[in-house]
Formats: sequence, C-alpha cells, structure tokens
Amino acid sequence: MTITGQNLIAGEWSGKTEGGFKAFNAQTHKAIDIEFSDATELEVNTAIVRANEAFATYGQLSAQKRATFLRTIGEEILALGDELVEAACGETGLPAMRIQGERGRTVGQLNLFADLLDSGEYQGVIDRADGERQPLPKPDTRLGYLPLGVVGVFAASNFPLAFSTAGGDTASALAAGCPVVMKAHAAHPATAELVASAILKAIKACDLDLGVFSLIQGKNYGIATQIVTHPLVKAVGFTGSERVGMILQQQIHQRPEPIPFYGELGSINPQFIMPKKLESDSAEIAQGLVASLMMGQGQFCTSPGVWVAVGEKDSADYQSFVNAASESLIEQAAGVMLTPAMCAGYNAAVAEREALDKVTLLATGQAGNEQECSATLFETDFATFASTPLLQEEVFGFSALIVRCADANEMQQLVSLLKGNLTASIHALDSDLAESQKLSQTLVHKVGRLIYNQMPTGVEVCASMNHGGPFPASTNIRTTSVGSEAIIRFRRPICYQNMPVELLPALLRD
Amino acid sequence: MTITGQNLIAGEWSGKTEGGFKAFNAQTHKAIDIEFSDATELEVNTAIVRANEAFATYGQLSAQKRATFLRTIGEEILALGDELVEAACGETGLPAMRIQGERGRTVGQLNLFADLLDSGEYQGVIDRADGERQPLPKPDTRLGYLPLGVVGVFAASNFPLAFSTAGGDTASALAAGCPVVMKAHAAHPATAELVASAILKAIKACDLDLGVFSLIQGKNYGIATQIVTHPLVKAVGFTGSERVGMILQQQIHQRPEPIPFYGELGSINPQFIMPKKLESDSAEIAQGLVASLMMGQGQFCTSPGVWVAVGEKDSADYQSFVNAASESLIEQAAGVMLTPAMCAGYNAAVAEREALDKVTLLATGQAGNEQECSATLFETDFATFASTPLLQEEVFGFSALIVRCADANEMQQLVSLLKGNLTASIHALDSDLAESQKLSQTLVHKVGRLIYNQMPTGVEVCASMNHGGPFPASTNIRTTSVGSEAIIRFRRPICYQNMPVELLPALLRD
Repeated sequence: MTITGQNLIAGEWSGKTEGGFKAFNAQTHKAIDIEFSDATELEVNTAIVRANEAFATYGQLSAQKRATFLRTIGEEILALGDELVEAACGETGLPAMRIQGERGRTVGQLNLFADLLDSGEYQGVIDRADGERQPLPKPDTRLGYLPLGVVGVFAASNFPLAFSTAGGDTASALAAGCPVVMKAHAAHPATAELVASAILKAIKACDLDLGVFSLIQGKNYGIATQIVTHPLVKAVGFTGSERVGMILQQQIHQRPEPIPFYGELGSINPQFIMPKKLESDSAEIAQGLVASLMMGQGQFCTSPGVWVAVGEKDSADYQSFVNAASESLIEQAAGVMLTPAMCAGYNAAVAEREALDKVTLLATGQAGNEQECSATLFETDFATFASTPLLQEEVFGFSALIVRCADANEMQQLVSLLKGNLTASIHALDSDLAESQKLSQTLVHKVGRLIYNQMPTGVEVCASMNHGGPFPASTNIRTTSVGSEAIIRFRRPICYQNMPVELLPALLRD
Repeated sequence: MTITGQNLIAGEWSGKTEGGFKAFNAQTHKAIDIEFSDATELEVNTAIVRANEAFATYGQLSAQKRATFLRTIGEEILALGDELVEAACGETGLPAMRIQGERGRTVGQLNLFADLLDSGEYQGVIDRADGERQPLPKPDTRLGYLPLGVVGVFAASNFPLAFSTAGGDTASALAAGCPVVMKAHAAHPATAELVASAILKAIKACDLDLGVFSLIQGKNYGIATQIVTHPLVKAVGFTGSERVGMILQQQIHQRPEPIPFYGELGSINPQFIMPKKLESDSAEIAQGLVASLMMGQGQFCTSPGVWVAVGEKDSADYQSFVNAASESLIEQAAGVMLTPAMCAGYNAAVAEREALDKVTLLATGQAGNEQECSATLFETDFATFASTPLLQEEVFGFSALIVRCADANEMQQLVSLLKGNLTASIHALDSDLAESQKLSQTLVHKVGRLIYNQMPTGVEVCASMNHGGPFPASTNIRTTSVGSEAIIRFRRPICYQNMPVELLPALLRD
C-alpha cells in the first residue's frame, strides 16, 4: 500500500503533505522519506462534525452489528500483513516479534469487546411496574446505557498498535457506540495510516457512516487543543506523559460542559522485596527485575522503576541483591528508544539523577552506538527518597532506582509517600506473610493492580484486568483502559420510565 | 433531645455557638432561637483527619457489617420520632406528611444499600491462572473494588432528609466503605443535628471508629473550600445550584490530585405534549402538569419547568391547553419557600421573565401573606426560547414556561438546543407514535431519565433508577445519585494478580 501521508477525514484522504513533517526511523535516527500532513483546523472540525453526524446512526446500531464491525477491523489489520509490521518496526525501533505480539493483542482486544457485545452483558436492569404498591404505585423503570457521543483519542508513543489507532481506547469507544476522532502519534504516522486504512475497509464492509472514524495527522499542538475543547467531543482518551496530559486536562477544565478525560499519565511501579525473599532468592529476584526493566527499553507504562528492599547497607542479603542486580544490568545491551527526543529525554533524566546527592549510580548497561541508550541502575536510601520529589517521577526508559529501607517501618512510610501507580509487586516468601499482609493493606490504595511474586510488565487483556489507578497513573481512578470494563468509560446510564415497547431499545424490551 | 448547635467531630460535640448563625422558621420567616456554631478550620481539619484514620478500619469492614451499620442508622432515625418531623417542618416549611414520606424514603435508601451489600453483588470477577496457555501462561487475576477514602458531602436545601445528613450521598458512600464528612445545609441545621445524633448512636452500637462520620455546621463559605480542596478528601457529593456547584468544581480543578465531583446542579425537565395528546386530553394534561409543578412549591430537582406543545397560537387545541393550564394555576394556593432567600430569589426570577419581550405571564397563583410566594405560568414561542438563554435556566420554585412550537420540526430543533436535564417526559397517544419515536431518539441524549405519559416528580429508589444526566443536570454524566448504582461513585476497581489467599479480600477468595 502506498502511504499517502494524508489525514483520513470521514472516509476521504485529505490534506497537503508537501512541506509536512516526517517520521524518523528509530534505528538510524534518520527521517523516513514520506511527508505527512499537519491537519488544518478545517479538517479537524470536519472530522468531528462528521463523527457527530455518524453518531445519529452508529449510536443506535445493534450490539451485534457493532461486534461484527470490531471483528472486521481486526481481520483487516491482519490482512495488512508484513507491511504493517515493517512500518511499525521502522518507526519505533521495536523488534518484529514484539510488534507481531502487539498486533495479536490489538486484534484480541477488538474481539474481546465483540464477545462482550455478543454476550448481551451490560444490557441493564428492568424493574416492572406495580400498580398495587402503597402508598403510591410503582412505575416501570428500565436502566439502559447510551454511548456518550464523539470520542477524541490520542495515540501513545510506546504501543504503536495496542494503544494507538485501533487500540484499546478506540476499540472500547467503538464498542460503546461512539464514533472516534483519532490523533495519530507523530512518531508513527505511517503505522497509523495503515491501521486507519484497515478501519476504513471495515466501515465500508459493514456499510457504516464514513464519519464513524477519522485519523488526524500532525505535529501542531493546536490540533490537540481543538479536539479536547470542541463542543461536539464528549470524552477524551489519552496515554502519554503527565506533562502533556495535564495540559489537556486543564484545557478540558475550561470547557463550559465538563466531559470525562481518561488520561493514563505515569507510573513508577514500585517493587517490594520482602526480607525473607531477599535472604533466600536475591539473585533470582534481581535478575527478574532487570529482565522486566529491559522490556521495550523500559518504555512500558508498567516498567518497574523503583525497587524497595529492607536491609542495612552492609548486610549480606542486601549487598547480594544489589550486586546481582548490578551484575545483571551491566551485561544488558544498549538499545534505541522510540524517538530521538525520547533518547535525549532519557539521557537527561539519568544525568539529573546522577547529579543528586546520596543517589549512587550502581551500574550502567553496555554502551551502544550514537543512536542508542544504555540501561542504568541507581541506589539511594529511604531518607533521600522521602526528601527528593524528583525520585517519584517516572523515567521513561530502562532506568531503575533501588531504595534501601532500614526496616519494615521505613518501607511502610515509603508506601504512605507514594503517589498513585498502575501497579506494584510484592516479592515474598510464605515466611514473609505477616509483613506482606501489612504492606498490602496500605499499598493497595496506591495502585490499580497489586501483584504478588510476578513482574509488572505484561498486562492481561481480560475481564478482571484493571489498568488505571490513583493519580497520576490515571486522571480517573474509577476506570480502566484495558479489559472489558474499559467500555464503561464511553457510555452512561439512562432510565426509561413507563415506555411503550416501540420506544425502548431492543435489549430492554420484555 | 436538646439541640446543642454544635458540630459533631468524630463523636465529640464541638464548637462555640454564642454569636453563631440561626436557622429560620420557613413559615414565619423568623429566626429559630438556637445558635449554631460556624465550624472552625481546626474542627473541619480534625473531622477530615479523623475520617481518614477511620478509613483504615472502616474501609476494610465486611460488607455484612456495613449493611448492619446502614440498617442501624435507619432504625435510629425512626427512633427520633416526631421531634425530627417537627424540626424539619419548622426549618423548611414543608408539611408533616411530606417530611414523613421523605423520612421513609431516607430509611428505604439506607436499606436498599444494605440489601445490595448483603446480596454479595458487585463482588468482582475472577479469571483463574492457566499455566498451559501459549505463547505465555495466564496469571490469576481477580477484579475487586476499593472504597476511595474520605468523602465530603454537601446537604441539599430542598430535601432535608433524603439528600442531606443521612441521604443518598451519605448512604452510598458509607455503603462503599468511605467515611463521610457532611456539611449541613444552613437552612436546616437542627434537622441535621438530630440525624447526626442518630448516626452517632449507630456508630457506637456497631462499635465503629468514631471518625466514620462528622457533621460540620456553618454559613462560612470557607468551610466548603476547605473540604473540597483538602488532600485527604477523595470524592465530593453535592446537590444544589449551578452557581455554587461550579465554584466548587473550579476549586476541585485546582487540586494537584484530581478527585471525582458529583454535583447535581439544575434541570428544567422539559415536558413534550404531542399533537394527538394535545387534541384529545389538553385539560387533563394541563392539570397534571400544574399538580406536578406545585409539589414542594416547585422546589424539586425534577419539577417540570418547561412545557413544549405544537400548535398555532390561535388553534383550538393549543388554546384549550393554555386555558386549562392557566385556569388550574390561578387556583393554586400560595406557599412558603424553603428559606427567605429562596423566596426572594424566586420573585426576582419571575420579575426577570416578566420583563422579557415576547414572554407573556399567562397566570399567577393565589396571593399569600408576606412570607409566601405565588405560582406563575409564562408562555413564549420557539423563536424567543431559542434566542433567550435565560429561559433555559432553572427557576427554583413553582414557575413554568409554555413554549409553543409551530410544528414538529420546531420541536425537534428545540431538543437540539436543550442543555442537559435530569428528566424529560413525552405525553402522547398511540397515534403520536411515529413522532414520539423520532422525538425520543434525540431527546434521550439530553436527559438522565426519559418518561412516557408520567410526570417527572417522584423519583423511584430502585436498581434501575438514574438520577443524573448531561451537564448541568450532573457534573458527571456517567453516574446517578439515586438508586443502587450510586454506590459505584465512591469505589474503584482494583486488580489482584497471583495473590495468595491470605492477601485477598474475603469476597475474592475461592
């Protein structure tokens, strides 16, 4: 397929590409020789207005037809074949196996929501009339769900498929009955165009209004502002940095009509290594943490950024853990980051930590070429962590910080200082149980997912998943962006009272 | 029981009452001879800090014990007997029968949530491990729910029991496992103190931490700011005016950590009278609307404020409707409003509408004494409604506006102009069905509850109720403040991965 570099506006490829922006090949740090359009204000507005027009029919489409649409998108994505994998690998520097796995996950997500729609779940609650009730008769009331309307979605840099064009936000919004206006990430615009072309084929195959999906390309920040402040946009999904996410949140706060903003913004995913575990398995746990840290060069939202262990600095157990972690880390290969800017950002964050008092650089991974970054492992003590807010900020990349606590009491204090996180893990033996229980009771209130003896990377896509948590992990603590429950973000309850059958949605009829 | 006039701070009656504010007798517009404390910053802070301490145990209390607590509160409220009814009638001017009904509803709400907790619903989802899965084993993941933490609740003026101290917000927050810091409404502080004393008895009877509930008295606006911006407050429930609600919303937007704000702010509850209905039953429908409007002097959040009918100004059907409505309204007795300020506000809003061009005062209810207000009925045409934003603002009180549309097309245009509403009704015959269907398809997106041939006043408390809707009906379109689903506002999902049984909550164990 020839990449046009254009926007997809309600079924039409649109926009001037000459002089537009170029994507970078993440391996070579060289521009990829395709120009991409910066969407104009008119194009963005057209996409939103046409999405709202499409809402009139798409919002009333039966659950079965929405399910078929989602499955068709998945099939069309698979039909793109190797071209999609090659485009994504080039634009992100991620290996083919990883992109293939992510493609499987993306199609799996679409099918998960299709299954959910086919199952008839979430249909609502029916309370029938009771004319005899005293002191007043009870009316017939039926609770159903309505899609919110047009949803604006922002693609994430680090998952070019699963959290991008046809990723979890798009899949759950479409499943709920909401048209989607997608802002592609400027780091992988060709990947976005390919996936958008698959969605367009599915729209045509299912005979839907072409306004159901539009893809906006661009590097201009004004596009984001236009989307989140447009009166016809009724919800926004975003995965990205806390800095950009909070700019969007503030813009949304200025709207006359409040709308939900689902931002997944950052997480350090603290790992707690309990004393008996440290004593018994220090090398194993250190190696496991390093392996988890290295996934995608640490550019995972669930990357383990802070490792908390109890021990005196010179105790054998603690030193054995630190040594094993350092020895493992220095062997790790350098790697390219998603973009040159992220490479620079990572190196700057590492330098900033190196300059801190009482924060020690324990180990650095292998050096690479100019385009590559090296993993890093730092160490500090509880008092320094507690007094240094910077150390609670996510480093986007494969850098971890070991925090040494003198005792379980300091570990508990550390938990009380934590901001919100997507995940935390407790690494423990049975003989740590009493301490693990105590820790989990407070730690659970700081995370969206609490894990025992497993690494945080790898997010199951299933009904019981929660990918969210207290701020800044999510701007909306009550929702998840992964798993079946993600659909509830884009629908809302509606009560039908005393309705004749003709005015009831099919799922709420007798 | 002697009213102390003090705040209830984590089990202690606290505060200086000399020189404090007084409640008014709504019938006489004379101050009631009890002084009430304006809570100090220290008292408010103590209430919140103690609530957060109580969260450590209350947040982990079993669902059964929370259910028992809710039922005990209901029993203690009933045990207050006539003293509660007399206090509420005096402070609000509402008749005893209404207050008795509201008390029944309040106890019913507490029991509804207790039943929900006892039923084991909302327990979560269990996805077991599958070690054989390819390419990767599936971990055991279990989705449960955690209470958010301390909830700040603001009592409503118009429901001194059901939306106040132990009302729906308090009941659903306590049901979810959240301690409550309640700001009493300054219009009914004695009623609030009596209900708070009932809650205190229930806390003691159930042997709970006294910090689980505090009552804050005061007229000082700083108290509200302190509550909604306090770092330990994790959610806020509010029922009141759009003006005050949006001030609180903006203050919450300034917090470093976003928290959910559940504000129910205003609704004009449009009533659509379809052509055949108008032709057949104009007098009946007019009388029904007037009766609904008169409930509580129109101080219901679901009061029917705008009535939309299709007809030429001089058509017999339309005129018959207008005449029947006017004739019914002028017979209606004057009545006292909840407070002198609301009486003044109502009269000012009526005067403002009288001064508008092309808005006609059709009828005024009977005149009363100096403390009383009279019902009013206005009329205008579609074009004037469309061009006059003021006419979409709620008049808090028994004033309604008939909007005449020339045809069904204008009626549809009117729907597209509407802001969000708690409810709308379609009054129709079978022979209106085609038009009713068309109307409902757009109208449903403007309301939280769509009603057919019934009046909007009277909100069922049941699992299928939705009391919310698009802004300004609610600041959070995805939630209801009435009915079982209200509990989800104060809890959030949490995923437990690979947890040993000892670290799982009881409901998620095998």
